[in-house]
Amino acid sequence: MATPDSLLASNSPPAGDWPITPALAALLAQRREGHGLPRAFYRDEALYARELARIWHAGWLFAGFAFEIPDAGDFLTLDVAGTPVLLIRGDDGAVRAFHNVCRHRGTQLCRADSGHVRALVCPYHSWTYSRQGELLACHGMHEGIDKTPLGLRPLHAEVCLGFIYVSLAPSPAAFAGLRERFEAAGQPQGFDRARIAKAIEYDVDANWKLVWENNRECYHCITGHPQYIRSNFDIYDEGEASPEIRARIDAAIARTNRQWDVGGDGADHPKGGLATFPDPDSDLWYTCNRTALAEGFATESLAGGRVSTLMGDYRDADVGVLRMRSMPNLWLHASCDHAVVTRMLPAGPRRTRMKSFWLVDRFAREGADYDLDALLPFWHLTNEQDWEICAWQQKGVDSIGYEPGPLSRRKEYNVDAFIRWYLKQVRA
Amino acid sequence: MATPDSLLASNSPPAGDWPITPALAALLAQRREGHGLPRAFYRDEALYARELARIWHAGWLFAGFAFEIPDAGDFLTLDVAGTPVLLIRGDDGAVRAFHNVCRHRGTQLCRADSGHVRALVCPYHSWTYSRQGELLACHGMHEGIDKTPLGLRPLHAEVCLGFIYVSLAPSPAAFAGLRERFEAAGQPQGFDRARIAKAIEYDVDANWKLVWENNRECYHCITGHPQYIRSNFDIYDEGEASPEIRARIDAAIARTNRQWDVGGDGADHPKGGLATFPDPDSDLWYTCNRTALAEGFATESLAGGRVSTLMGDYRDADVGVLRMRSMPNLWLHASCDHAVVTRMLPAGPRRTRMKSFWLVDRFAREGADYDLDALLPFWHLTNEQDWEICAWQQKGVDSIGYEPGPLSRRKEYNVDAFIRWYLKQVRA
Amino acid sequence: MATPDSLLASNSPPAGDWPITPALAALLAQRREGHGLPRAFYRDEALYARELARIWHAGWLFAGFAFEIPDAGDFLTLDVAGTPVLLIRGDDGAVRAFHNVCRHRGTQLCRADSGHVRALVCPYHSWTYSRQGELLACHGMHEGIDKTPLGLRPLHAEVCLGFIYVSLAPSPAAFAGLRERFEAAGQPQGFDRARIAKAIEYDVDANWKLVWENNRECYHCITGHPQYIRSNFDIYDEGEASPEIRARIDAAIARTNRQWDVGGDGADHPKGGLATFPDPDSDLWYTCNRTALAEGFATESLAGGRVSTLMGDYRDADVGVLRMRSMPNLWLHASCDHAVVTRMLPAGPRRTRMKSFWLVDRFAREGADYDLDALLPFWHLTNEQDWEICAWQQKGVDSIGYEPGPLSRRKEYNVDAFIRWYLKQVRA
Repeated sequence: MATPDSLLASNSPPAGDWPITPALAALLAQRREGHGLPRAFYRDEALYARELARIWHAGWLFAGFAFEIPDAGDFLTLDVAGTPVLLIRGDDGAVRAFHNVCRHRGTQLCRADSGHVRALVCPYHSWTYSRQGELLACHGMHEGIDKTPLGLRPLHAEVCLGFIYVSLAPSPAAFAGLRERFEAAGQPQGFDRARIAKAIEYDVDANWKLVWENNRECYHCITGHPQYIRSNFDIYDEGEASPEIRARIDAAIARTNRQWDVGGDGADHPKGGLATFPDPDSDLWYTCNRTALAEGFATESLAGGRVSTLMGDYRDADVGVLRMRSMPNLWLHASCDHAVVTRMLPAGPRRTRMKSFWLVDRFAREGADYDLDALLPFWHLTNEQDWEICAWQQKGVDSIGYEPGPLSRRKEYNVDAFIRWYLKQVRA
Repeated sequence: MATPDSLLASNSPPAGDWPITPALAALLAQRREGHGLPRAFYRDEALYARELARIWHAGWLFAGFAFEIPDAGDFLTLDVAGTPVLLIRGDDGAVRAFHNVCRHRGTQLCRADSGHVRALVCPYHSWTYSRQGELLACHGMHEGIDKTPLGLRPLHAEVCLGFIYVSLAPSPAAFAGLRERFEAAGQPQGFDRARIAKAIEYDVDANWKLVWENNRECYHCITGHPQYIRSNFDIYDEGEASPEIRARIDAAIARTNRQWDVGGDGADHPKGGLATFPDPDSDLWYTCNRTALAEGFATESLAGGRVSTLMGDYRDADVGVLRMRSMPNLWLHASCDHAVVTRMLPAGPRRTRMKSFWLVDRFAREGADYDLDALLPFWHLTNEQDWEICAWQQKGVDSIGYEPGPLSRRKEYNVDAFIRWYLKQVRA
Repeated sequence: MATPDSLLASNSPPAGDWPITPALAALLAQRREGHGLPRAFYRDEALYARELARIWHAGWLFAGFAFEIPDAGDFLTLDVAGTPVLLIRGDDGAVRAFHNVCRHRGTQLCRADSGHVRALVCPYHSWTYSRQGELLACHGMHEGIDKTPLGLRPLHAEVCLGFIYVSLAPSPAAFAGLRERFEAAGQPQGFDRARIAKAIEYDVDANWKLVWENNRECYHCITGHPQYIRSNFDIYDEGEASPEIRARIDAAIARTNRQWDVGGDGADHPKGGLATFPDPDSDLWYTCNRTALAEGFATESLAGGRVSTLMGDYRDADVGVLRMRSMPNLWLHASCDHAVVTRMLPAGPRRTRMKSFWLVDRFAREGADYDLDALLPFWHLTNEQDWEICAWQQKGVDSIGYEPGPLSRRKEYNVDAFIRWYLKQVRA
C-alpha cells in the first residue's frame, strides 16, 4: 500500500554520505540567526544519520591513549555509534586503527575494552590477522583464496602527545594543524608520560549537540556548578568583571606566568570567559589555551590543594589549567598534577555516551601520591551536574511548545559558534 | 539511496497539524460501518501523529484540580505525549497554563509533579518568570534584549467546578457548553471543596482508543468486573432487564430521587445501560448523568457501605452515582462520599498513561473519616481489570489475523459512537 | 512538511504481501555471489516486513507436538512475530490451528502457553467458540447476527510424526513431500510416542538469518563447540579427513549400520560434513539424514553414555543421530535415547526467539530413567555457545565497516545454499 523506501534507507545509513532531501534541506534552513536550534535537530532520525555521515564518520575522533597500549599486541576498542573500532599497536611499534570486524562473516573481532594479543584471532572461525591487520590464516577456506585483500579494513589513525585520533573517513581532513597546536601547547603537561588513574563512563539521555552546547558556555555555572566556579574565572565573560575581580584575574595571570619556564603556552586568556571555540569561519576545529586558577587553587580539586604529584615538565604547581578541545568529541582540563580528558560518542538521537579519563603522572602511586577520593570529585561532580541539565533540556526541546530562544551575545558566543560550525558540516 | 523525508517528518510532528497523505487517507477510509477499527489504527506511527495533532493537541484536556494549587505560586505539571505542561496559580488568584519550557534554551522548567514557587526560575541559566509567566529577568543576556515577547508560552486554561482543563490549541473549541453542563450537574458534589485522598498512576500497554472503547461499554462487565456490577445496573442495556430487574431498577431510581433536594440532576437514566456518549452527530464531547445504586449500596465500595463523610451538599447517602465524561481524557464516578476521577494521556501508539484520583471532602481525615483500604479497592480493582483486558486486546489487534468484528447494537452503541467521533476528528 | 506514507506502511505489514520498492529491489540485488549478505539484510525494517510476508507468513512452521495435546480441548499457543496462533485438538480428535484472536473485538483468546478447555470463551465478552472454531454463542449481540461467518479464522495445520506444522498462508505450499520424507526417516525414533522432558526458551540478540547461517556450518565448531565435536565427525567436510580419521568414520558408519534392523534410514552420510541443506535449486526446504557417532558415544551427551531409555523402535544404542530440518524454523538431533528439537521464531530485525525441546520416551521417568543434569547440558551448552556467537556477529554486521566476505566452498556450502534459498523467497 505504500513505499518503505525511506525506512529502508533510514536503517541503512551509508558509510560515506547521507543525502539531503527536500525535507532535510528545509529543516537545515530553519535555524534563526542568533538563536538555538529548532526542535527536530534534537530528535530526528534522518538528521542523525546525516550527522553520522558528515561529522562522526568524517571527522577526527579522540579514541584513547597510546600509553594504554605500550607494547606490540596491546589493543583498545570503542564503539562509534554502532560501529566497532579497534586500536592496536603493531610489531613495528606503530598504533593502527581498524574496523573491529572480521572480513569473513563480519563478527566483532575483539570484545574486551582492552587487552593484549599475539595475533588477532576471530572467535567464530579462527581467521587470524597479524597485529598490523594482514590476514595470516583462514584455515578451512577453499583452495586459491587470496588473503591479500582480506586484511582488516584500516582506518586513519594519528597519535599526538599520546592522544590517539581515528577517522572513519576514506580521506579525512588534514591532521597536521591539530598536531602542531597540541604539541606546542601540550608538551609540558607530559601526556605521553601519564597513566589513567580512573576512567568513568556516563550515559547521557540527551542529543550529543546539547552536551556540546552545555560545554561551550559558563553562563550556567553559577547555578549549575557552585563548586567548579570557585577555582576559576570562567563566569566573567569579557567586560563582566568588576574592577575588584579584574584585579584578581590579572594577579592570577601574572602569578601563573611569572613561574613559567617550561615551554608551551603561558596563561593567555586575559579577556575572560571561555576561549572562542569552535571557529566555523576559519574552520578551526581544535584549540588550546591556558587559564589561571583563582587564588587558593593549586589544581582543579574541591579543596584547592594538590591531589597528585606534578606532571610532565612542571616544577611548580602554579601553572593554571591547560584546556584543549577538538571537534567533535574531545575536551580536557589539565592542572599541574592531573588532567581530566572527556570523550563523547553518540548513541542515538537522544543518547550520548561520555567517558572521562583522570590522568596522573605515570609514576604516581595510588594511596601514596594520590587518592581517588580527592582526585575524582571535582570533575565527576561537574560531569553529573551537566548530564542532568542536558537530560532536562532534552525533555524540554522534545516539546511541541519549544521555540529556540535568543543566545546571549555576551555569554553564549560559543554556543552560537558551535551551532554555526555544526550547520556548516551537515549542510556541506 | 532513498529519501528519508517521511521519517524526518514522522519524528517531527508539527504542533498544529499533520497532513493526510494518500496512505493515511486510505487507512482512514477502511473502517467498515458497525465494526471495530482495523489493525493499523492501533499501531501506526503516522496515524498516532495525526491523532496528537487533531485530538490531543487540539481538544480540552483535564489536567488536574484547582484545589491542588490553592495559593499563588502553587503549581502542577503533566506530560501530554512528550510535551511538558505547567499549571500555576498567579498572584491574582487565577489558574494559568503554560508550556513548561524555558524560552531561552528550551529546558524543562518545573520538574516536580507539584510544588510552590515565588517565581519560576529556570535551573539552567536562571531566567526568571513571574507566576503569570512574564519574563522578569534574564541576567547575562546582552544589552537591548526585549523581555516582553519572551514570557512563557501560554496555553488556554479553564477551571470548572475545580477541574482544570487545558488546551494546547491556538484557538480551542468553546468551553462554555461543558462548563454549563458540568456546573448544573456537578454542583451538589462539592468538587471544589474536595481534596485528593490518593492518586494512582497506571501504565497501560495498549493504544489509548482501546482504553476508551473498553470504558464505553459494560458488555464486558459480567466477566470482567464481578465486583463492580453488584453496585449498579449498568449491564442491563435497554430492553435487557427482566421484569424483576426492571422493578428493582425503577425502585432504586425512585428511592434515589425521593431524597433529592440538593439541586443538580436526579437519577435520570431509566432506559438502562450506559448513557450515550460521545455523540459525534451533535459534536457532543462531554456529558453528565446520575444513575441509581443497587439496594445495599450507599456508595461505590466493595462492601456497599459508606467509605467517607458525605461530600458537597449531600445530606443523605442515597444520591446514586454522578458520572461525568469529556473527550478525549476524563471520566469520573462520584458517590455520596467520594469521587474517582480518571485522566488519560497517550504515551505512544501502544502505551497509555492513566491516573485516578480518589477525592473526599476536604475536611475528611484519614483514619478517622475514611480508610484507604476501604476507599480504594472498588475502582483500583476495576481499573486493573480493565488495563489487563486492554493489554490482551492490543496483543490481539497486533495480529495479522485480526479483522474488526461486528459491534453489538444493543451493548456497544457507545463504542460505535466513540469510533465515529474519533474518525470525525482525525478525518477533519 | 513531508509524507508519512512509508512509515504508515512500515507499521502495517499486510498479511499477504509486502511490495518490492525500488530501494528494496536495489538491496535484494546487492548480494555478491559466494559471499555473505550485505549489512542492511540484518537490520532493515522494510526487508524484515518483506521476510515476514514471504517466509514467515507463507511457509510451514513447526509449532509444537501433537502429544502435548492428546485430548479434545487441549491446546498450545505460540507467537509468530507478533501474531498469536492457537493449536487445539477438536472433538473429532483432529489437531487444528487458528488465529488466536476473538472475531469480535480482536482480543487474544487463549493466553497460557498450553491448557485445556471445554470451549473457547473469550475473556472479554464471553464469545464462545467450539473446539473446532465455530462461534457457538455471542450473548449480548443484536438480533439477527449471523454466527456462521464469525468462527475463528482457521490456519492450515498438518501433523506428521507428532510434529504439528502450521502455515499462516491462505494457500501454502504442498506438505506431502515433507511428510513422506520425515515419516520414512523418522518412524523408528518414535516421536509420536515421546514426551517433553524439558523445554527451554532463549532470546537471541541477532537477526534470524544469522542463527540459520550459524546452524548451517560446522566450520565454527572447533573453536565454538569443543564439547560437541567430540561426539561426531561434523567438522570433517568432504575430503578433509586424514586417512586415520577416514578410517574412524568408515568404522563408525559400518558399526551403526550393522545393528540396523528397525527401518528408516541407516547412516548414509559417508562423504562427511553437514548434509546439503537447503537446496534452492530444487526447492527442497526439508531434509533428513543419519550420521554415525564417534566411538565412545552412545548418544549426544557430554560423557557419551546413555541419558535415558531407548526411544521408539530402537533395540540398541548404536543408531547414530537422526537429523531433520525444515525451513524456516526447525532442526533436530535425535539419538537412541532422546531427541532435541529446536524451533525458531523471529521477534524483530535484531531479535530471535528460540525454543529447544528435549524429548524422551513417553514412559521414561525423571530420576529413574533419566536425569536432567545429564540430559540437558550437551545441547543447552551448544545452544548458548551459538547464541553468543550470533549476538557478536550482529554487532559486527551492524558496523558501517562490515563488508560481506567470501564463504568457504569447502565448509560453508550450506550457508551459501541458505542465502540463495532465502533470496529466492524474498525476491519472488
